[in-house]
Amino acid sequence: MRTPTPDDRFSFGLWTVGWLGVDPFGTASRPALDPWEYAERLAGLGAWGITFHDNDLFDFDADEATKAERVERLRRATDAAGLVVEMVTTNTFTHPAFKDGGLTSNDRGVRRFGLRKVLRAVDLAAQVGASTFVMWGGREGAEYDSSKDVYSAFERYKEGLDTVAGYIKTQGYDLRIGLEPKPNEPRGDIFLPTVGHALALIAELEHGDVVGLNPETGHEQMANLNYNHALGQALWSGKLFHLDLNGQRGLKYDQDLVFGHGDLLSAFFTVDLLENGFPNHPEGPRYAGPRHFDYKPSRTEHMDGVWESARACMSTYLMLAERARAFRADARVQEAMAYSGVPDLAVSTLDEGETAADLLAGDDSFDPEVAAERDYGFVALQQLALEHLVG
Amino acid sequence: MRTPTPDDRFSFGLWTVGWLGVDPFGTASRPALDPWEYAERLAGLGAWGITFHDNDLFDFDADEATKAERVERLRRATDAAGLVVEMVTTNTFTHPAFKDGGLTSNDRGVRRFGLRKVLRAVDLAAQVGASTFVMWGGREGAEYDSSKDVYSAFERYKEGLDTVAGYIKTQGYDLRIGLEPKPNEPRGDIFLPTVGHALALIAELEHGDVVGLNPETGHEQMANLNYNHALGQALWSGKLFHLDLNGQRGLKYDQDLVFGHGDLLSAFFTVDLLENGFPNHPEGPRYAGPRHFDYKPSRTEHMDGVWESARACMSTYLMLAERARAFRADARVQEAMAYSGVPDLAVSTLDEGETAADLLAGDDSFDPEVAAERDYGFVALQQLALEHLVG
Amino acid sequence: MRTPTPDDRFSFGLWTVGWLGVDPFGTASRPALDPWEYAERLAGLGAWGITFHDNDLFDFDADEATKAERVERLRRATDAAGLVVEMVTTNTFTHPAFKDGGLTSNDRGVRRFGLRKVLRAVDLAAQVGASTFVMWGGREGAEYDSSKDVYSAFERYKEGLDTVAGYIKTQGYDLRIGLEPKPNEPRGDIFLPTVGHALALIAELEHGDVVGLNPETGHEQMANLNYNHALGQALWSGKLFHLDLNGQRGLKYDQDLVFGHGDLLSAFFTVDLLENGFPNHPEGPRYAGPRHFDYKPSRTEHMDGVWESARACMSTYLMLAERARAFRADARVQEAMAYSGVPDLAVSTLDEGETAADLLAGDDSFDPEVAAERDYGFVALQQLALEHLVG
Amino acid sequence: MRTPTPDDRFSFGLWTVGWLGVDPFGTASRPALDPWEYAERLAGLGAWGITFHDNDLFDFDADEATKAERVERLRRATDAAGLVVEMVTTNTFTHPAFKDGGLTSNDRGVRRFGLRKVLRAVDLAAQVGASTFVMWGGREGAEYDSSKDVYSAFERYKEGLDTVAGYIKTQGYDLRIGLEPKPNEPRGDIFLPTVGHALALIAELEHGDVVGLNPETGHEQMANLNYNHALGQALWSGKLFHLDLNGQRGLKYDQDLVFGHGDLLSAFFTVDLLENGFPNHPEGPRYAGPRHFDYKPSRTEHMDGVWESARACMSTYLMLAERARAFRADARVQEAMAYSGVPDLAVSTLDEGETAADLLAGDDSFDPEVAAERDYGFVALQQLALEHLVG
Repeated sequence: MRTPTPDDRFSFGLWTVGWLGVDPFGTASRPALDPWEYAERLAGLGAWGITFHDNDLFDFDADEATKAERVERLRRATDAAGLVVEMVTTNTFTHPAFKDGGLTSNDRGVRRFGLRKVLRAVDLAAQVGASTFVMWGGREGAEYDSSKDVYSAFERYKEGLDTVAGYIKTQGYDLRIGLEPKPNEPRGDIFLPTVGHALALIAELEHGDVVGLNPETGHEQMANLNYNHALGQALWSGKLFHLDLNGQRGLKYDQDLVFGHGDLLSAFFTVDLLENGFPNHPEGPRYAGPRHFDYKPSRTEHMDGVWESARACMSTYLMLAERARAFRADARVQEAMAYSGVPDLAVSTLDEGETAADLLAGDDSFDPEVAAERDYGFVALQQLALEHLVG
Repeated sequence: MRTPTPDDRFSFGLWTVGWLGVDPFGTASRPALDPWEYAERLAGLGAWGITFHDNDLFDFDADEATKAERVERLRRATDAAGLVVEMVTTNTFTHPAFKDGGLTSNDRGVRRFGLRKVLRAVDLAAQVGASTFVMWGGREGAEYDSSKDVYSAFERYKEGLDTVAGYIKTQGYDLRIGLEPKPNEPRGDIFLPTVGHALALIAELEHGDVVGLNPETGHEQMANLNYNHALGQALWSGKLFHLDLNGQRGLKYDQDLVFGHGDLLSAFFTVDLLENGFPNHPEGPRYAGPRHFDYKPSRTEHMDGVWESARACMSTYLMLAERARAFRADARVQEAMAYSGVPDLAVSTLDEGETAADLLAGDDSFDPEVAAERDYGFVALQQLALEHLVG
Repeated sequence: MRTPTPDDRFSFGLWTVGWLGVDPFGTASRPALDPWEYAERLAGLGAWGITFHDNDLFDFDADEATKAERVERLRRATDAAGLVVEMVTTNTFTHPAFKDGGLTSNDRGVRRFGLRKVLRAVDLAAQVGASTFVMWGGREGAEYDSSKDVYSAFERYKEGLDTVAGYIKTQGYDLRIGLEPKPNEPRGDIFLPTVGHALALIAELEHGDVVGLNPETGHEQMANLNYNHALGQALWSGKLFHLDLNGQRGLKYDQDLVFGHGDLLSAFFTVDLLENGFPNHPEGPRYAGPRHFDYKPSRTEHMDGVWESARACMSTYLMLAERARAFRADARVQEAMAYSGVPDLAVSTLDEGETAADLLAGDDSFDPEVAAERDYGFVALQQLALEHLVG
Repeated sequence: MRTPTPDDRFSFGLWTVGWLGVDPFGTASRPALDPWEYAERLAGLGAWGITFHDNDLFDFDADEATKAERVERLRRATDAAGLVVEMVTTNTFTHPAFKDGGLTSNDRGVRRFGLRKVLRAVDLAAQVGASTFVMWGGREGAEYDSSKDVYSAFERYKEGLDTVAGYIKTQGYDLRIGLEPKPNEPRGDIFLPTVGHALALIAELEHGDVVGLNPETGHEQMANLNYNHALGQALWSGKLFHLDLNGQRGLKYDQDLVFGHGDLLSAFFTVDLLENGFPNHPEGPRYAGPRHFDYKPSRTEHMDGVWESARACMSTYLMLAERARAFRADARVQEAMAYSGVPDLAVSTLDEGETAADLLAGDDSFDPEVAAERDYGFVALQQLALEHLVG
């Protein structure tokens, strides 16, 4: 398997390799390095970019001088390593002041404090040259239906997002916001549980043009949903701004496994979509952003395992990309796709200029009994995919 | 418990009491009645309205004369019983011609046939005086990521919905479309899996103004999501046009239990929302439609059990409505809500006219350490709800 | 609602009210009290007993003098408050040495260290007069199928449990072990995921007679299973030694909500089983242990909310117990039970002395078509339960 | 990919290729063939054996002459094709008489009728030379906690199983029973939801020696559990008598996809276990039964797709078996396993003859802080598996 290069545009959150292994039932299993140390190691593994939360770089209560010093220190390290800081995000979930949320806390003081923290992180994102500003509202939610007025919550979410998006425009920053949905954890129910809900909120924003999605593999799967359908709808809506690749094994806590170590067939089709787009729509939308990993090295691993796991994310992606290209290039696959009617779905249901009334008045000789006997060949097509995947 | 009356605006699908008990592993356990017989019995139990699929009333392959005769026969029965036909929907899932969907089938002939069937059902809905036309795309989906071009699927879904919505406008029908999301079953993954995804699609439609939602309790719960949050977001988006009340016990097949026989605490807050709206927003959106049940009498029940189960749906609703009113009227609850900051969330985060820049330039003396010590009282508030519920 | 008294035999883990609110995305939201302070407060609320992990009382690396001093300090507090220490358990999951498990770690040194820690905790349990020793093997599991030889894992689990159970016998301790199953979290898959798997392992033990179950509401529900069926099978197998009551809302992280704040209808039938046993088997097994709560006060709550939540657990139980007694005493319920055939299931299928051959040779005039028309009345019966619950 | 041969011992249920596509929302999408036609086609594809329910071969109400004629007809076909009938099972779920179960129905008449039907199917199994008799109690369960006395249900389940197992012994049949667990569908909660629960029941039987397990991939996954852990525990308990291979994509209705079309990484380790056993226990238990598929050709497929899907099940298995052998043979893998401590888990925790007291009295110089720093290398090992799988 070839070694990744910056051309592959792989990026990692500093909090991924930087996760110390603290979980609900256990304390840290690894020592903490400095942010620039993680960055340097990632560069050494072939990564192109890094991303971080404000508080991955400096403490929640750091003073301005310390912040500036640490930002500068990271900048020197990334410059030296040839790394891009492609995305920045903010942490409005760790400190207990945010225990009921940042933008939708029932406490207005917290909301104002949270909004200010987000805006400052936007400044930081612009300063370090990021193109995406991710917002994960992990604490925006509830455990109890009594505790939240959902109408108010959406009013406040909208107000907060529009304030941030408007600020980006006012400041003239070259930044777009990527909302990151998640159904639950750490709250019992989070307000933007899936890509669909986030798209629906964006449609109601005043400044929705600079707001899109940052869908995470495992988060959609925690809602029992198909990640590739989510990516497809986000692309169709023109809103796939960024993404978080990882692995999840079913309906449980957020596992953040290595990409491919969850649902492997699904991962294959994720890479197929990212690399090959929608082949029936050559001029349709393509994802043009980084291949960003948001995973956690398992708590059983020490530092060697941290680097092995980062390497594994990229290696899996490259393997799947190779398989996906061969899959699409295979004449048998194209034939099977045609047999299955996959390209037919790109054809309008109505003829050019045909209206509903025309359709109703037109030829109705279609025989559903014949249609009922069509063999779609979906299983054979999927088996071809599996054969390409398994090589 | 008082007997329901038409003023309660309870309605039932004919397919609910009319379900014969056929499931993936069993044949019918009950005899079939005629549609008007179900309608008469429902009226006798206190229902206000009924709803149906086209093929609940006449066979898939019925000729026009038979259709007209059966529509007329039902109309006479509903008139005699004082029943409203408040919603009509179409069946594009039972016949094997629709095995890959109606509006998004990979077979264009099927798509045209399906669209025609939907349009004819719209005519029927208008003819019988329904105000809502529900569209459940249960077969619009896939089992295999190879088998569907998701971009094309959304193009076709949009085309189909806009064609139907445009037709409603062209015909001058007083009808609105209610999309019904569901994550899976009968397809492995359905294209509009949740309320969020449907809202997101509606936002892309040309005729989205007459298209809204028909969220079903169990369907959202099959995506591991909070039904009341879904209702809340749909109301906030101005799109809660209709609903399907029932019960579900966790992540499994679509159970369609009696309302309240699934997650009872959630059902309590559903009724609270329907009856009391958003108390912090007296002029905010209210659901004004029917209390519509989409459930199935368990296969273990014979005809007595069918009527008992319909009665139970209404009885549970009335009990919960009584409890919900008492809950909201209780001064201790209002005090607990205030303690929890629930009304505070209705207050804008920014002051009137305040900008992001103002916020950043303003007073930043807020102390997060003090905020971290706030006791939100959510558990005590939820316990008050439970006490009201349990009486 | 009456105040709980020691006669109600409510007990709480010190780690419940003592949970500081640390979760995978957040730091502590509450200050830590000393163990005896929690105990005193619980006594004041009406609790009868407390339970703890060794390291709830003293640090992982405490020396013998400190341990003794803290044990003595707690003993004085419980004696003064009239509290029983009814169960003790051990922590083999927090320290990173246990990151791959205690009894089934791939590292034999860790296994020996873990086993020694368990044995010392058994001594402690005996010393403080506990009657149950709970073993939750939360780290006994895996994220990856490659990483564990499952046969070896069960060999080691058996070896560990038999060593501990044998030690209890050798020492003459009046203690029984309660295994606590859980499907996942903190490991991707835990080895004893449900009550069934634990019962199956016990059946293979040499000293299985002193090993039973400690089933937790939310843990079974995290495996998508019916908690009351689990309690029923454990009772039927003579193995319901202890239990952990709490609340869970679906397939997600371990929520540990207040009892009743999850699936309320299920909680009602849990209390019904605990209070009323199996009414069709008056001499059948009854659960005779404490009503033990293993929950977490939500992270949004400060100290007031901690005590409110503990109070809520007991209050819910008492309300449900009252409702459950009224349910069983209601003649309409008994009639509905008879109609549903519930008592009939207590009757042997074969007659006294009848063999399979007799059955085959006997009267076969049974008409399944008639049986198919039986109305079991299950929905009406459940609705009666709901009416009793809702009052 | 090579063509399967009888030496591969692949077998299929007649109901698999014979599934007509009837689902809860749709009617048949394929014509029915005769049982012998399915058998002949399966033989042509390389299958070694077939299996069936009594009512896959003859109707529920067939008379004795018809039954005999159809059994004979199938026997001629299998003899001619060189097929083995390796397993027979009975259908106590389709007919509405069984709507509340067969062995645990609340109606004693049904229980006696069900037991008789099972016994006659045992005779049939013996007659056709099957070695396994599978019992799937799909209707043994409940939707409502009020409707079942769980103690009675287990009493009756035990009575039924012991009657059948005793009859097998009395008759001298060379048959073993394989219980098939499933958590739900068609009942809300089924009584033997997982492999664990079934093992626990078997441990209580009088004739448990001839009763074991028939675990199905998707069924364990519907309980959110690891199928390979289930196979491992069943093997460890000496109870893996038979199995059902298929595919499932998450927590939803029973999908019965082609083997490998669900969780592919899990399928890889299933095949690894079946082909390679427990490599650290060369004399440990091995699964010696058929590779039996219990899947459904998707409803979108017509007859071509039926055969393609059967072929795909076998083809996937053969591919994975090849990969699994290469995985185990790879020196890098063995080295990684050793690094991860996988073989170490086969070593007893205690020394030969060492007691708990010895352990406590012995050297306690083990340093947990050093152990905490061990790098288990699990991620790297899993990545090696993925690389072997993806080739």
